[in-house]
Amino acid sequence: MNKADLLNAFQAQLNLILAPKISFDQNFHIALSGGLDSVVLLHLFTRLRAFDKKYSLCAHHINHGLSDNAAHWQLFCENLCASLAVDFCCSPVILEKKNRTSLEALAREKRYACLTGNLLDNSYLITAHHQDDQLETVLLALKRGSGSTGLQGIQKMQKLQKGHLIRPLLNFSRQQLAAYAELFQLDWVEDESNQDQDFDRNFIRQTITPLLKERWPGMGKAVARSANICQEQQQLLDEIALADFNQLVEFSLNQQVLPIEDLAALSIGRRNNLLRFWFKKNQLDYPSAKQLQALWTDVALAIIDAQPLLQFKGYSVRRYRNYLYLVNDNKLAASIAQKIEWQGQDKIVLQGGLVELSFSIEEDAKAAGNLLNLDGNAKVEICFRCQLPANLACQPLGRKGSRSIKKLLHEYHVAPWLRDLVPFILLDGKLKMAVGLWSCQSEKTAGKPRYLNCQLKAIG
Amino acid sequence: MNKADLLNAFQAQLNLILAPKISFDQNFHIALSGGLDSVVLLHLFTRLRAFDKKYSLCAHHINHGLSDNAAHWQLFCENLCASLAVDFCCSPVILEKKNRTSLEALAREKRYACLTGNLLDNSYLITAHHQDDQLETVLLALKRGSGSTGLQGIQKMQKLQKGHLIRPLLNFSRQQLAAYAELFQLDWVEDESNQDQDFDRNFIRQTITPLLKERWPGMGKAVARSANICQEQQQLLDEIALADFNQLVEFSLNQQVLPIEDLAALSIGRRNNLLRFWFKKNQLDYPSAKQLQALWTDVALAIIDAQPLLQFKGYSVRRYRNYLYLVNDNKLAASIAQKIEWQGQDKIVLQGGLVELSFSIEEDAKAAGNLLNLDGNAKVEICFRCQLPANLACQPLGRKGSRSIKKLLHEYHVAPWLRDLVPFILLDGKLKMAVGLWSCQSEKTAGKPRYLNCQLKAIG
Repeated sequence: MNKADLLNAFQAQLNLILAPKISFDQNFHIALSGGLDSVVLLHLFTRLRAFDKKYSLCAHHINHGLSDNAAHWQLFCENLCASLAVDFCCSPVILEKKNRTSLEALAREKRYACLTGNLLDNSYLITAHHQDDQLETVLLALKRGSGSTGLQGIQKMQKLQKGHLIRPLLNFSRQQLAAYAELFQLDWVEDESNQDQDFDRNFIRQTITPLLKERWPGMGKAVARSANICQEQQQLLDEIALADFNQLVEFSLNQQVLPIEDLAALSIGRRNNLLRFWFKKNQLDYPSAKQLQALWTDVALAIIDAQPLLQFKGYSVRRYRNYLYLVNDNKLAASIAQKIEWQGQDKIVLQGGLVELSFSIEEDAKAAGNLLNLDGNAKVEICFRCQLPANLACQPLGRKGSRSIKKLLHEYHVAPWLRDLVPFILLDGKLKMAVGLWSCQSEKTAGKPRYLNCQLKAIG
Repeated sequence: MNKADLLNAFQAQLNLILAPKISFDQNFHIALSGGLDSVVLLHLFTRLRAFDKKYSLCAHHINHGLSDNAAHWQLFCENLCASLAVDFCCSPVILEKKNRTSLEALAREKRYACLTGNLLDNSYLITAHHQDDQLETVLLALKRGSGSTGLQGIQKMQKLQKGHLIRPLLNFSRQQLAAYAELFQLDWVEDESNQDQDFDRNFIRQTITPLLKERWPGMGKAVARSANICQEQQQLLDEIALADFNQLVEFSLNQQVLPIEDLAALSIGRRNNLLRFWFKKNQLDYPSAKQLQALWTDVALAIIDAQPLLQFKGYSVRRYRNYLYLVNDNKLAASIAQKIEWQGQDKIVLQGGLVELSFSIEEDAKAAGNLLNLDGNAKVEICFRCQLPANLACQPLGRKGSRSIKKLLHEYHVAPWLRDLVPFILLDGKLKMAVGLWSCQSEKTAGKPRYLNCQLKAIG
């Protein structure tokens, strides 16, 4: 390929990725390590900028400080950017040395946090991942035993909290990038840790890939194709999971719960797809096939009297009255709150940030369940079960006679581990409401009544 | 592992696979090549039979005649079965030598045809595929650029036309099988072609797998896990595709057609999943990502006046009036039929076996569109457009005045390539019906009328 062909191929690829999102004030942030791949990436973008003045371009170098050459690499990148008239910034990242594998993952995580931290909505973070990286990533996913989630490899486009991450070189081989660098006589630095076969990725790169590509020159392309199909399939699986989740999910004290009977009506694959999605939605790692199996047979289908539970990292899956709960045990433990006096604020955050209790004053009593008859300047307090007398009773609206709180929580189907989280409202020390569950029978007040509307909402 | 542990592990695996289908008169057909894997498999089943007399067991050897040692292997298998008191049968398979790769695929195809040919509904064909085969298969799928369809690798259970194919050793490594053979002092034969690295699979087995397993001893297990997840995910994708297909499919002259507007409303992944399923349903290879892209942009979304078409092996995807058609071009070309006289038979097969035209006599005229007023002993003939005068006209029931057949076919939205396939019915040489489209206005008959009900049905 000559220069024009390479540039055209690259431009076509970029257009394909950006096509649905073209706007006139995009900021392109190039992640620049100084190695061959990112130097080619940066150079490509400066060439495109030459044809189109709308490009706003900058390069971001991360200095991990792990190599003796780190300062040299940083200087190299700075000089390169100066020579190409590209804005340059550099962030130091400090890593605590652990064992090598975890260092690799840690460095990656910190690097991305740093690269994505200052993006705007119209920003594109651009990394130089290419076809050979994709091949390595997919082989590593296979080694981990992943399904299509892992086998989809590196994605060409990801939505970030702000802006997007794109990888326009994924369809180009390292060989093509090297050819580009030669054509344009580019310099770059070599990271000596790329030779270190203690890293799994380097083992694949140095030992396995050359054998595969010698036998099948099209292997890189084929694996990229495979990854693309898996990406598309994973998106569909997520689409199905989201629809199923929205269809089935119910709420108990703002905790998402899934009805076991409905889960049981799904095919195994569909149920597992939904359960995986549920974990991901709660920022948890995907459960393994074994864990999914245990979750179903040992928790969901446990004998009726059992209080089954399966623990994950800081989470547990539990069953109560034919519903599955995914319980954040850490937050649960941290969320036992003190008695709070309401000072007229709009909301109070509870459960370690998981839910908020919102307040508003209403003139009439339409939504009776959430309303509290505000008697003059009564003192309003929010408290929890542990702050109430053990044998306290009350009379929910519409019921004859009163009953103990303990029995009422059971009757209202509040799972045992959630009973400490129910916010109770006291008026001048007298129990008036279990928020989200019931209001208590109250005496008539003189004059026009004012009502306090109390609602529990999930945050985020 | 000692003998008992190995046997228990195997028994547990087998139970897991067979659990949903346990019955008391199962026939187990072991595919026996004489190599280590199938000798172990056969021996395992004889051990299980020793505990359970209900097993009916036989071994089936395929003699490909490709090796000079073929006769020796056959004899070895025969003697082994005699010593284990297992029924033995052998089928010769004759292959035409082509190039090596296609020979591998051809031998496989003929072998399976032969092994599955005589099964009954309660038969299990059992093959000795193990974890290392799975690893090779998944790497080969990756090399081909497959999505989860290929990456699901070898399946542990498949429904056959009659009976099932099961592979109870998929979770065992070759090393475990070798250990078993050593424990029980088993003999086996070596197929020298397993050493031939001209075969892609042997290249992986001899060159790649040892490196991977040396680095990651758990690699075989991990890939098996990955394959299992992909199998489950592929089943879910098929479930979704089937539901979407049944929801969207319409029929035109018994050809399945898909409305483009509804396809366009699906996400890309969901649409492609449905289109892949459509191809598979028609016994076609999966289309590639590129072909799917072309199918959508060049056929489905072609400009309105175009008659777009995309050709596959003997098939074409075409668009007509906002519907996609998957046309079997070979059958289409072969299905131009002659004029046929109806002799009172129940049905006549048309379109090279794709559809049948069925006949029944009715006493009243409820389903008027399909009914033909049978006038005494009129001669009934089935013919096609090419056998009718070019400018022939007729008057469909409920219409004022008559119109040419040419214009009517257009008006009834029959795709151009299907117009030669419409069966017309003549009564004493006079056009009375275009089956599935319209009946013609007919004269009142004297006496009680008899009706001939003509229906077009898809076969299979």
